[in-house]
Amino acid sequence: MSEFRYNVLTKDWVIIATERAKRPEDFKARSAAPASDSKEKCPFCKGKEDKTPPEIFAYREVGTAPNTPGWWVRVIPNQFPALSKENDNDRKRVNDVLVSMKGNGIHDVIIESPDHNQMMAMMDQKQVEEIFFAYRQRYIELSELPEYESIILFKNHGAGAGTSLSHPHSQIVAMPITPMMMRRKIQAGEEYFDQNGKCLYCHLIEIEKEQKERIVMESDNFIVFEFFSSNVPFDTVVIPKWHSSSFENITANQCRELAGVIRLTLKKLYTALNNPDFNMVLYASPTHEKDLEYYHWHIKIFPRISNVAGFEMGSGVYINTVIPEAAAKYLREA
Amino acid sequence: MSEFRYNVLTKDWVIIATERAKRPEDFKARSAAPASDSKEKCPFCKGKEDKTPPEIFAYREVGTAPNTPGWWVRVIPNQFPALSKENDNDRKRVNDVLVSMKGNGIHDVIIESPDHNQMMAMMDQKQVEEIFFAYRQRYIELSELPEYESIILFKNHGAGAGTSLSHPHSQIVAMPITPMMMRRKIQAGEEYFDQNGKCLYCHLIEIEKEQKERIVMESDNFIVFEFFSSNVPFDTVVIPKWHSSSFENITANQCRELAGVIRLTLKKLYTALNNPDFNMVLYASPTHEKDLEYYHWHIKIFPRISNVAGFEMGSGVYINTVIPEAAAKYLREA
Repeated sequence: MSEFRYNVLTKDWVIIATERAKRPEDFKARSAAPASDSKEKCPFCKGKEDKTPPEIFAYREVGTAPNTPGWWVRVIPNQFPALSKENDNDRKRVNDVLVSMKGNGIHDVIIESPDHNQMMAMMDQKQVEEIFFAYRQRYIELSELPEYESIILFKNHGAGAGTSLSHPHSQIVAMPITPMMMRRKIQAGEEYFDQNGKCLYCHLIEIEKEQKERIVMESDNFIVFEFFSSNVPFDTVVIPKWHSSSFENITANQCRELAGVIRLTLKKLYTALNNPDFNMVLYASPTHEKDLEYYHWHIKIFPRISNVAGFEMGSGVYINTVIPEAAAKYLREA
Repeated sequence: MSEFRYNVLTKDWVIIATERAKRPEDFKARSAAPASDSKEKCPFCKGKEDKTPPEIFAYREVGTAPNTPGWWVRVIPNQFPALSKENDNDRKRVNDVLVSMKGNGIHDVIIESPDHNQMMAMMDQKQVEEIFFAYRQRYIELSELPEYESIILFKNHGAGAGTSLSHPHSQIVAMPITPMMMRRKIQAGEEYFDQNGKCLYCHLIEIEKEQKERIVMESDNFIVFEFFSSNVPFDTVVIPKWHSSSFENITANQCRELAGVIRLTLKKLYTALNNPDFNMVLYASPTHEKDLEYYHWHIKIFPRISNVAGFEMGSGVYINTVIPEAAAKYLREA
């Protein structure tokens, strides 16, 4: 017998299909390298700094020059950006329903290591901290630009997760719009806050701590759990225990702790699922809507071990073949 | 320079990324067979009728018995259903945010041909008409059940589109919920209707007919076009020119014409993209909200030739590398 579960954060339902259930250990899909990947041609490797646009900043050995070796994390503009600086946010209306605007925005890459074959799950904690410091620094810089409304920080690992270069890297995009997906999550939080006088996410954290069965791990200030109504197997939430809607407010020490927690979580997923392809995404409030009482930033990790088909595209209702509580137990023990 | 386009039907934006633009003819991905597929073991083939649950109905030669050969379209319960009949739609509330219910529903399969190696794009029109008659019959039957709110009719073609059996088939699911995605599209239509006094979709059809550049083909009663703010390359809309929100109202003659139009559209996609994996999905109103003035049923075909990555998952904003007008031109000429 399968089960519908309600996603209180998005108002979608999900089907947990135990008739088709797979045991967590049935997912053993090794990350696929991108088809065109070759270390020789990789523009992100140490010594190839002239193959990328000039760096925005890098954390590097004192005395080394920009765009030369000596860095451990390097932030550059994306050479093939989805958006670029246009200084024009005007909506163009062909008529009342066909509306467009220039592809104005910023699209950067955070190169996570000079080493082509590294990956976050296997790095030492120090290196992951540096990556998260770079995330934070660039996020703060972009959030201060008045012309952009939202920032999407994400990482694609493996060909199945949509990456074309296997050298470990993340991306950050600043956009002049607030995506509807962001609006809807915030609206659900707002509605809950208005009705209950508390943050929906803070409340969810309380419930997870009480029920325990979906928790993967905890540190002083962060909690990692499988989401009750996960759309996909091993949909993992990493969320601060203190209330904050704006990622740019994270302190250096919190950032260190977050890096450690993410590293351990990725390590568990690496072990449990044999280095799966995955996406990691930050969800935070629009940059000019700071310190909202009713939203709460969080990071999600989505292993790409299942496929979306016509049913999901037609309904927005996902069929998840792994019970989140079983996934959590499996990850706790990994 | 890329472009943002607004999706008036969902309120999402999409990025049409001409910087990364691909020409339509660069997509040449032959449909992948499912890994475990074998004609010998296929339960949908002629002569294997005892390998499936007993048929619900079939269109077959007069004088042949149910569950024996002689059929050309066969409707059966899914042997591994995502949902099954539970006669229980009660919401179970662990607390105010954790809500679930039994996986109550119906999940059927429409076997489109007795021949394992057929596909809709290559069938003769008569056979496709029979499939659409089966869609219609089963849709009407399910829409009359008071305990279900919504029906999702869809088809997955190829492993990349999520199918596990390559024998041509479609699926139909009746659910006791109205998916939020359906609600949101209807709400957008309602809002437009309230402000403008006309159906948003009827208006969109007028605009497409006026602008012409996104039209793929037209028949007397249907129009096929590339959507202005397509999330993915070759996202193709098939929509009746007359206003109707409830698919179950389609007449036999309209059903015939629709079958012919879909067949030609799939043939164009087959030729243009070299037999791509695709999903085909029907969007119609909830079954107990009939004849809405502000919603309009339509079918969408999504070739699975691009990958969703962290950016899309984090924002709901898709990056589409093919300009819809170019896709339409390419399909018109295919």
